[in-house]
Amino acid sequence: MTETALLEASTEEAVVKTRKTIIVFSGEFDKLVAAFIIANGAAAMDDEVTMFFTFWGLNALRRTEHVPTSGKSFLQKAFAKMMPQGPERLRLSHMNFAGVGPKLMQKMMRENKVMSLEALIESAREQGVKIIACAMSMDIMGLRPEELIDGIEYAGVAAYLGDTDEANVNLFI
Amino acid sequence: MTETALLEASTEEAVVKTRKTIIVFSGEFDKLVAAFIIANGAAAMDDEVTMFFTFWGLNALRRTEHVPTSGKSFLQKAFAKMMPQGPERLRLSHMNFAGVGPKLMQKMMRENKVMSLEALIESAREQGVKIIACAMSMDIMGLRPEELIDGIEYAGVAAYLGDTDEANVNLFI
Amino acid sequence: MTETALLEASTEEAVVKTRKTIIVFSGEFDKLVAAFIIANGAAAMDDEVTMFFTFWGLNALRRTEHVPTSGKSFLQKAFAKMMPQGPERLRLSHMNFAGVGPKLMQKMMRENKVMSLEALIESAREQGVKIIACAMSMDIMGLRPEELIDGIEYAGVAAYLGDTDEANVNLFI
Repeated sequence: MTETALLEASTEEAVVKTRKTIIVFSGEFDKLVAAFIIANGAAAMDDEVTMFFTFWGLNALRRTEHVPTSGKSFLQKAFAKMMPQGPERLRLSHMNFAGVGPKLMQKMMRENKVMSLEALIESAREQGVKIIACAMSMDIMGLRPEELIDGIEYAGVAAYLGDTDEANVNLFI
Repeated sequence: MTETALLEASTEEAVVKTRKTIIVFSGEFDKLVAAFIIANGAAAMDDEVTMFFTFWGLNALRRTEHVPTSGKSFLQKAFAKMMPQGPERLRLSHMNFAGVGPKLMQKMMRENKVMSLEALIESAREQGVKIIACAMSMDIMGLRPEELIDGIEYAGVAAYLGDTDEANVNLFI
Repeated sequence: MTETALLEASTEEAVVKTRKTIIVFSGEFDKLVAAFIIANGAAAMDDEVTMFFTFWGLNALRRTEHVPTSGKSFLQKAFAKMMPQGPERLRLSHMNFAGVGPKLMQKMMRENKVMSLEALIESAREQGVKIIACAMSMDIMGLRPEELIDGIEYAGVAAYLGDTDEANVNLFI
């Protein structure tokens, strides 16, 4: 083996993994804020970021307006109806107080000049954060692509695992 | 130093870490489904997987039938009695509706041909996923090895940390 | 390129990343115990550890005595008042039973000779675990540095992300 070959092998290894992946399982307002602050922070430092939305996390990606759908089972309709629709309607993981808690936290965020969750989501998309909606969870929860915001991808756990191969941080939120 | 020695050093570093570790702290049905879908997905892609069950997560490993035990303190008996016994009895993290929620989600999983939690656990074991029950948590929660399913290991946080040395993904669920 | 240069390149890559980072978002007693057992375990194995406390996790760092503060908004005062003050007053994520649950779990920890949460926090600090309070969360939640325990740092998400560059385990709890 020549020095060149050695060097190549060496260079290949030297690829620094900097992608960040975040599984967003929870659909609570405060956890979503945390997830998007990490994602935006990493993107601002030029890291690539993948957010994989699954189960309750998908609710943060729902359009706020009603979208007519067909072919849903009764249970899927009922689930979709009962789950919060979009970032404005998520609950807090603590001190939700029947929906007053999130409003109070939003007010405190404004008072402290922290971006709103909607703005954080928008910023993440502008910075090129890859947003994936878990196709299997969408089936289980009865959500259709047309009910979710634009500019996102639809994939399964294999796509998530593939992205972790380039990543040095992988969180489950 | 010879080229051979260099090559060896190089090769040693080149070992690609692909193990996935998952701390399963939560004992909720939906989080367990997520944990086992990730574990099965990674195992199907030939990665090694360690699942470290601690605190409420241990309830997913409990046998569903009653197992007589001796030497438990009053509190340990009370805790063991109040905690769900096995994957069939876990609650949802949202919309539990006094136990109706998990039944509905199970139905929606069946409708969409997603494996049941029991089948996911069985599949993980068949694919060689290493399942560790946290010995310290078992003491605290008052659970005995004979109350948990077969084919699992019992160890502490040092064993978990040891496995993370070979891993490129480490999640806390 | 000489062998020496190759060796140096090789050595540089060979730096083994062993830092552990833990984002402590949750403020529940059981999750805090889990976080500090992992942190203490890793520190005992000579790994460097960063714990980044954000949102409800900050409550675990609050002094238990009342600390007078000035300049808080009405909402910040209300939030600070309603949130648990210090490790003794945190709730369980399950079976809290209006505060009886944590007492029972503490008793079961003592019965099994597991360190108390206070002792775990103290041990982490003695072992040199880096404890960072998220400055932005403190603003949102209305917490002031003088309300938190001594010997901790105050920083933002960039500091956390910086530490992940040296880490091979990054958890969100």
